[in-house]
Amino acid sequence: MRDCIDAVLTRDGGRALQYSPPYAPLRGWIAGMMRQRGVECTADEVFITNGNQQGLTILSRLLLDPGALAVVEEATFTGIQQVTSGRGAEVIGIPVDLATGVDVEALEAAFSRTPRPRLAILIPDFHNPLGVSLTVEKRQRIADLAAHYQVPVIEDDPYSMLRFSGTPLPPIKAFDQLDQVFYLGSFSKILAPTLRLGWMIAPRALLPRITAIRESIDLESSTLIQRAVHEFLSRGLLEPHLTHLNQVHCERRNALLEALQEEFGESATWTRPEGGLFVWATLAGDIDTWALFETAAAVEKVIYIPGAAFSVTGGHRSAMRLNFSALPAEALRDAVQRLARVMHP
Amino acid sequence: MRDCIDAVLTRDGGRALQYSPPYAPLRGWIAGMMRQRGVECTADEVFITNGNQQGLTILSRLLLDPGALAVVEEATFTGIQQVTSGRGAEVIGIPVDLATGVDVEALEAAFSRTPRPRLAILIPDFHNPLGVSLTVEKRQRIADLAAHYQVPVIEDDPYSMLRFSGTPLPPIKAFDQLDQVFYLGSFSKILAPTLRLGWMIAPRALLPRITAIRESIDLESSTLIQRAVHEFLSRGLLEPHLTHLNQVHCERRNALLEALQEEFGESATWTRPEGGLFVWATLAGDIDTWALFETAAAVEKVIYIPGAAFSVTGGHRSAMRLNFSALPAEALRDAVQRLARVMHP
Repeated sequence: MRDCIDAVLTRDGGRALQYSPPYAPLRGWIAGMMRQRGVECTADEVFITNGNQQGLTILSRLLLDPGALAVVEEATFTGIQQVTSGRGAEVIGIPVDLATGVDVEALEAAFSRTPRPRLAILIPDFHNPLGVSLTVEKRQRIADLAAHYQVPVIEDDPYSMLRFSGTPLPPIKAFDQLDQVFYLGSFSKILAPTLRLGWMIAPRALLPRITAIRESIDLESSTLIQRAVHEFLSRGLLEPHLTHLNQVHCERRNALLEALQEEFGESATWTRPEGGLFVWATLAGDIDTWALFETAAAVEKVIYIPGAAFSVTGGHRSAMRLNFSALPAEALRDAVQRLARVMHP
Repeated sequence: MRDCIDAVLTRDGGRALQYSPPYAPLRGWIAGMMRQRGVECTADEVFITNGNQQGLTILSRLLLDPGALAVVEEATFTGIQQVTSGRGAEVIGIPVDLATGVDVEALEAAFSRTPRPRLAILIPDFHNPLGVSLTVEKRQRIADLAAHYQVPVIEDDPYSMLRFSGTPLPPIKAFDQLDQVFYLGSFSKILAPTLRLGWMIAPRALLPRITAIRESIDLESSTLIQRAVHEFLSRGLLEPHLTHLNQVHCERRNALLEALQEEFGESATWTRPEGGLFVWATLAGDIDTWALFETAAAVEKVIYIPGAAFSVTGGHRSAMRLNFSALPAEALRDAVQRLARVMHP
């Protein structure tokens, strides 16, 4: 990345430091990659963002008024809660099957409410916090429901390229016939968070309004960073980077799952993600992971995110999100032993 | 800047690419610089932003509801209109004296309205688009009015360091006794827009809410860029850069003013800014600069921003904003001759 930034500044000089429209070659590269994933789109349908949180902010400004209905998974990323309930929307939480993803019958019931929900936000792959991915059948069905009930679906996908086993799945957006699905992708998890760079595939007709909202928020994304990322991509560096990254993540997930089996075999259940960063573990019995958090951090020096932090309905008090990406296998095994001492002393 | 980015990545490696809290040494440097300008503040009162437009977005989310009263200068930056009327506020436009800045009597009348305005946004130095700077006396008075009427004043200051003549003036924030003034500063105009980096000096008690709003919008600013800018600053490179930049700007302003005198001596009036980027010219007679814009661009290949674009009350149809920063003196003289052919053929 250092070399890419250096090359861009040497080549483009002041042009890489000025105000600038979205960098066309980057938009083109992203459009090509999305087409390979089954999403019909052109470069001018690719809208550059500072990452998915900004994409969510823009779309909630576009689609959501205070008091409107917003549909989300019953346990979901806190940043999604911030752009829905945090902005005065009434939130409907949909149950999630931990093997196949969101319950589409419950989703249809929510979509058919009067007044109609104004948007739904779903995480298709390696869900944060649940670790589950939607089946292909459910993706197709969700796109159909969005079209049938005219409820815009925002597909928040920072993780799908972090797959280390199983078959890559097409985004929900690949099944979108009537421009009811907004796709959000990000370089934060596949390259580096410091880039503050992501993209949105949006219906072409809405791009002027989306651009106006974006400009009112913070004008534009750094053209230096857009050019440097495009340099990285056009050198063919992403694929070997992802291969390495996902191999490391796979070893770490395996270590975490094995340690969970050893330490919590009888006393908890957990998801077995084929990629991403997170395992969702639910403890048997009446254990409150919020209540134990301080002890875990202070006494055992191990941290997790309590399940209740993700719940939009006040549930999941005995669950927790475990991140396997940041520690080597040995440290993960040690961490799970520490967790076990806290959870069943 | 290339060397600074390179040095940071060599020194900090992965830490410069990860999620990260605001970079403490940068906050410390900014606090020191603001203290030199008369603003009592510590590093932990410096909030890092992606530039002043984001600062305005955050503060309008903090302070403004749809239907609330917002006070702005009668002609002001379009980005300020976006975060006020663009978000459903009722806007009060205050007249501006082109020699001394905003009319403080009219400002007091607006501040004393019932219900109270929820915020005022003022540009203290080298106003965009008017080019005027507030006198010291008016700065003091505005801080006093903010305190007396409990109307928060947002001081949007991207330009004050672009001074090439006259005496630097303390910000309004320097006179703020009761934490009613929010100061917004930016590296966009003094270093490079591509950095997408600015700062806010905010009352300490509000920082948790400001942080929560910022995180919900786009999480954080790039730690790589924060570290690179701090590297640039701590090497002492800003002062010589500004000296050079302002010298160039001064020559260009002089060329623009001389050309205006030659071509529009009898048929227009204009401001004579001691810094910044903009001159505000008002044509005599019944000339509509919106109506002439297409002709100027298409026939004479010269562009300006029509005055009406900045007006919150529908005025200034015969005015225009001229930017002297981007062209060398000879090109500016040529541009003014082209303008003259359009405006009085």
